[in-house]
Parts: sequence; structure tokens; C-alpha cells
Amino acid sequence: MNAEIIAVGSELLLGQIANTNAQYISARFAESGINVYYHTVIGDNKNRLLKTLETAESRSDLIVITGGLGPTKDDLTKETAAAHIGCSLSYDEKSLEAIEQYYIQVGKPMTDNNKKQALVLEGSHVLFNFYGMAPGMVARKQGITYVLLPGPPREMRPMVANQLLPYLNTNNSSRLIYSKVMRFFGIGEAELESRIEDILDQQTNPTVAPLAEDGEVTLRITSSSDDEETGRKLVNDMIHKLEQRVGEFCYGYDAHNLLYKTSELLTEKGLTIASAESLTAGLFSSELASIPGASQYLSGSLTVYNNNIKEQVLDVPGDLLTQYGAVSRACAENMAIKVQERFSSDIGISFTGVAGPGDDNGIAEGTVWIGVSYKETVSSFMVTLKGDRNFKRIRAVKHGMYALIQLLEQNKGPFVSENK
Amino acid sequence: MNAEIIAVGSELLLGQIANTNAQYISARFAESGINVYYHTVIGDNKNRLLKTLETAESRSDLIVITGGLGPTKDDLTKETAAAHIGCSLSYDEKSLEAIEQYYIQVGKPMTDNNKKQALVLEGSHVLFNFYGMAPGMVARKQGITYVLLPGPPREMRPMVANQLLPYLNTNNSSRLIYSKVMRFFGIGEAELESRIEDILDQQTNPTVAPLAEDGEVTLRITSSSDDEETGRKLVNDMIHKLEQRVGEFCYGYDAHNLLYKTSELLTEKGLTIASAESLTAGLFSSELASIPGASQYLSGSLTVYNNNIKEQVLDVPGDLLTQYGAVSRACAENMAIKVQERFSSDIGISFTGVAGPGDDNGIAEGTVWIGVSYKETVSSFMVTLKGDRNFKRIRAVKHGMYALIQLLEQNKGPFVSENK
Repeated sequence: MNAEIIAVGSELLLGQIANTNAQYISARFAESGINVYYHTVIGDNKNRLLKTLETAESRSDLIVITGGLGPTKDDLTKETAAAHIGCSLSYDEKSLEAIEQYYIQVGKPMTDNNKKQALVLEGSHVLFNFYGMAPGMVARKQGITYVLLPGPPREMRPMVANQLLPYLNTNNSSRLIYSKVMRFFGIGEAELESRIEDILDQQTNPTVAPLAEDGEVTLRITSSSDDEETGRKLVNDMIHKLEQRVGEFCYGYDAHNLLYKTSELLTEKGLTIASAESLTAGLFSSELASIPGASQYLSGSLTVYNNNIKEQVLDVPGDLLTQYGAVSRACAENMAIKVQERFSSDIGISFTGVAGPGDDNGIAEGTVWIGVSYKETVSSFMVTLKGDRNFKRIRAVKHGMYALIQLLEQNKGPFVSENK
Repeated sequence: MNAEIIAVGSELLLGQIANTNAQYISARFAESGINVYYHTVIGDNKNRLLKTLETAESRSDLIVITGGLGPTKDDLTKETAAAHIGCSLSYDEKSLEAIEQYYIQVGKPMTDNNKKQALVLEGSHVLFNFYGMAPGMVARKQGITYVLLPGPPREMRPMVANQLLPYLNTNNSSRLIYSKVMRFFGIGEAELESRIEDILDQQTNPTVAPLAEDGEVTLRITSSSDDEETGRKLVNDMIHKLEQRVGEFCYGYDAHNLLYKTSELLTEKGLTIASAESLTAGLFSSELASIPGASQYLSGSLTVYNNNIKEQVLDVPGDLLTQYGAVSRACAENMAIKVQERFSSDIGISFTGVAGPGDDNGIAEGTVWIGVSYKETVSSFMVTLKGDRNFKRIRAVKHGMYALIQLLEQNKGPFVSENK
């Protein structure tokens, strides 16, 4: 199946946003064995959409169009596609009802352009929008499959993952694609690649694809086969080989990133956690809370952003702060102990560091101390982080989660002291 | 000048990276009054590049190609463009010397494929690469301008800003572009557009472009003129007209989004703030801390994720929680007062709500109460939010910031009660 992706939206041509939709769809298609040969971006313009559709039909059998399904006059993807394919538009009852319900709930009048969002290509397979109003749809004509998707990524992504891919996989006979992701922390992409260079050079089936993102590195291992058992074996044998080489840095698999793994371990072990955050200012607890069910393990957090507050609200001793400073092992460990006590939680974790820009009180920008108080033990470690202010804060949270995972899985972990 | 951007690289079609190069170039071109009508992405494939070049020549007079200038076998942009335009390749002496110097410096041998990077289209204007090896270039043939740029963003961006744009501006008489952004909150994109429909329909110079992102809506007003004074007047007159129509929802201009505006107002007025966060779990304080200098106004925050913790750590009265529940006006206001007291801050703000998925204790998913305690007054308001768990949390933080801005600018704001 040869696919191409057409994104419609003048904001893309003005450079206000990047075409991350094409990236997301391409990555999911690659996993499913669908080849993508072209991305095109055009503005909200009927004639250019028509010309682009004609070119696409001459070279692709799966054409995905994102954007232009909204309520405004600019949004003309459905109307243009309908006219081009030669079909009419009709209301999708389920979508129309959801839109009407929404306006009843918020107590605002529903305008005609809102109603327009529920129109779909007649006879198409409708993809319901669980995160917005305009539904997506799949239409077929003369051997070509047309997919129309809403532009906002938070609406488009779950629609592709949960509805479009299962639909396409059921409706196309293709070889079976089986893939698994290995997740690494504490090793850079370049170093990981150099350690498995020969494997990367020789890869055919399964393929091994490295990807670095936000300081985590992943390897995606993908096999193509006629039956599931063969595909699974190809992938698992390769994972076994990779584990022998770089297994010490692998902390998890598939969607189980640092955040999910932390959340899973806390849930499994029935432990509660509270954080004392200076550098990260609530980012650690906010991240934990982003997963449904977080209230089971997240007791809470205290952001203590300056020395007075550390002393007055968290009860860090004033002479400790004077003697060692706020960015120190002593302060990190005390913060962890104090927040554990305050929230009566099983675990207390703390983050203190210099986000920058610039050094602070003689401590170099990027210096971060992370403390963990668990049962009768308190431990801590220091990392030096590079990058801008917010990258450092995100990386600090990841180091904290990685350390927690090591601790809860009773590995050695990065800790440098163990005393309370 | 009608431009289009062609990105060459299989990693884009596999979804490993987004085409941020096209975004960057489009934004810089928009500022310079160059219209971009198409972005295309293709893999490292000679035939598809040739076909794409032919299509581009039929509709554009400025064709920018990024990527494929590197040392490997995959990199075939220069060779393909040279064959297509009908010119040869020759070494750019300055680039060749820089590459040779580099290998002498690092003490490694220079291979032939490294040397290949210094090849340029004969007769082209060379753009020296200050951040890498492969130079960019500008060639002209039969009224069409071809620009070849390296793919890595850190090499391409300064080359465009410092060399390409000045070169194009000198070599093309272009008009002056002036633009301003108006920022809106509390009004949806559809409603905003319907209120200014006639203005959108009649727009010519300046243009008025709406964009919705993460629940905020912006209007970009852009004029094209021969001199700056005229351009500025065209834009300001239009802004004045728009303010009369929808000014009540406009909270700021240009890069001053809700976060920056909140931070600016707190700094200006020398006020400190602390947050009590249930639903948002530290996201509000973490967002505020993302701006350098946040320690001036952010005292801290308390995440209180369940009723026990609200009572034990924040001191919310148990009978208040029993009588009204945690997602209520009474609880939001009490949390705001308590956190203001605890951190001795000028302002206390609170967030409590049902993130979902699902309702909670008879309170509908998406119900959020936000409380603000400021001086001797406490106020609060309720909003109903849609979208997934994290979208709700982000939106709640934005509603909180919008309410703070209204309060600090002494507007009426969304508040529904004023008593303490």
C-alpha cells in the first residue's frame, strides 16, 4: 500500500506550526508496514487542494488529508473532496448529537457552522471524534482510499491509533508486522549506536531503529512475517541479543516509559509518594498526576522555591541552609525526609538545583541534587544537566523517576549515600 | 515571489523527525513578504526529486530544497539538481579548505565523501556553512531561483537568517511586511470568527488570520507597504476596529501569552503567589517556574491530591469537605485562603476538579473550581472543560492565569463570589 499525506492549513505555510501530524501518521504507518512516499502541505485553498488530489491519485492508493474539517469558512476539505470524488455530504447522527449535547452542557447557543462539523462524505466509514467535534472518515473510490482527519493533534492522534489503523489492518491483506520498543536511560544515542554498530549494519528482518527524544533513547525492533509466531520469535531473539550488549541501560519496553513505569511500580507495590520540589516547582507531581488513577499513589507535593519557604513551610533547618546551601546533598536529603513526614507517605522525593540561566551562589548552572527517603533510609545523588532551563527541569524529573525505578526494583541505582 | 519548499530525507517519511525546517523557512519568508504555497517531503530518491522539481517549476519562481547535501550515498540533491538544471558541479574553494582544516584539527583522515560536500552548482551564489561542512547555494535559470540548503536545523537556520534572506532581499524588490498578533481567551475560534465575519470576508491589506491553539485563539494582522509608517498605521487601524468588536476577550499582544502576561503583571506589581493544586497537581506552579526569574514572585505550591491530605496538610476543615465535597466553591476558596496564609504570599490560587475519565462522587467529569485569595478578598468561579485528562489540566491552568490577569488589571473577570 503506497500512501501520501496532505496537510491543509495556511498556518503551516506561514510557519506558525510544524507539520507534526504528518510525522505522527508516518511513524504509525511505518509500524504497520504502510509505505509513505510524499507529504504535501497546502493552504486553505480549494483549487490547490484539487490539484494536489489529482497528483496524489496518480501515484498513491492511500491518501490521507489532515485539517480543514472545522467550523469556519476556511475549512473546505470535506466540500472539496466530496465534489472531487463525486459524492454528497450528509450528517453523521452520532457526531451531531455529541455537538448538540456539548452546547446544551455549556449553555451556549449552537451556531450553524458548529453543526457543519458533523457532515461526512456519504457512505464513508466514520471515525468518531472523542476529543473534539469534527469526525474523521474513510471513503473508497476506484481503488483509492481517502482518509480525512481533523487537524488538532490531540483529536487526530487517538483517532489514528484507536480507529484508523485497526480499520486499515482489517481491510487490507498485508504481511504481519510485529514490533517492540526497548527503552534506555543513562546512555546517549551516539554511544548506544556505537556499541551495537555491527547489529545496526547487518539488520534486515527484524529492523532495529534507534530514536532519541527528550534525553531518553529507544530502539524499535520490527519484523515482517506471514504468521505471528515467526514475527514474535524474530523480534524476541533480537531483543535477547541486544540485552546482552546494552541491557544494563534498558529500563523498560514498549509504551512503558519512565513515567508509566514509575506509576506501575508504585501501584503494584501499593506505595504512596510525595515530592518536595525546588528546581522542578511541581513538575514531578504534575507529571505523575497526568496518568489516570494517580490519586492511588500520589499523596501530594510541596513546591518550596526559595530558602525562606524551605525553612518556614517545609521546616528545613536554617543552619543547614546556611552551612550547605539549598543545592546540596544535605538539603536534598532533608527535603525528602520532611516531605515524606508531612504527607505521611511511604516515599519522599526531592529536587533542588540551579536551572539558570547562570550560576547561583557559586554553584554551577545545571547542578541538581535529588534525594529519596524510603522507609528508614534516605539516599541522594547529583547530576549535572545541560540545555535550556526547561530541558533541565524535565531531565531532572526523568532522573528522579529512573532512580525510583532502580530503588523499587532493588537495583543499585545512582545513589551515593545511604543514611538517615 | 511565489515560493515552495521541498524537504529531502527518508527520516521525515518514516516519522522519525518533523519537518521543522519548512516551518522555520516559512516563518522567515512570511516576515519578508515571500508567499509560500507548498511544502513537499520526499525520500532520498532521485526520480521522485526530479518529478517534484518539474511540478514545482510549473507553479513557483522560488524553489527551496533542504537536505541531501551530506557526505553519504543517500545524499543526491546536488547531483540531481545539477543534471536537471543542466549545469556541472565544481568545488567551492573556501568550503573545501574549511573541511580540510577540520580533519587536520581532529587528526583524522579526510575521505573522498567528505570532500564531496564542498561541491556546488557551477555559477551559483555560495552560502558558507559556519556550523557544519556542506555549503548552501542559490542558482538561477530561466526566471526560477533554486536554493539548496543543508538539512540539519542548526546549520540551516543561521544560513537562512544571516545569508539567504539578505541576499534575496537585495536581489528582489519586495515590499515591507509589518504584523502584530492579538491574543484572546474565553471565546472559541468559531464564535470569534462569526463576530468579525464581515472583516474576514473583506480583508485585503492588512490580512487578518485566525489561529486556535490549546484553547487560546489569536488573530495575526499583517500589512504590506512601501514604508514602515504606512504599514504600521494599516495594522493599528485594523486592531482598533477589532478591539471595538471583540476587545473584551483580548488579553494581550504578540508573544505575551497568558503565562508571560501573568509573570509580567506579578513582577510589575511586586506581588508573590502560592498555589494549592488538586486537579492540576503542581502544573500551575511548574508553568510559572518555567520563566527565568520566577523566584521573584513564586512563593511555592502545595499539591493536595485527596481529601485526607487536603485536611491534614492544607488544613481544609473536615466538615467543609463532608458538606460540600472537594470539588466545590467552598473548598476552592478555602484552599486559596489556606495556601496564601501558609506561604505568607500576597495571592493564593487554588484548582480543584474532576479530571476523569469518568464522573467523581456525582460531580461531572470536567467540572473545575478555581479560587483566588488576594488581600482581604476571596473569589472563585467554575468552568466546565472538555478533552482528555491532560488537556483539562492545561486548560484549567490557563483559566487560572486569565482570571489572575483580569484581577490584577482590575477588570471584572469571571469571578462569581467576593467574600472571605
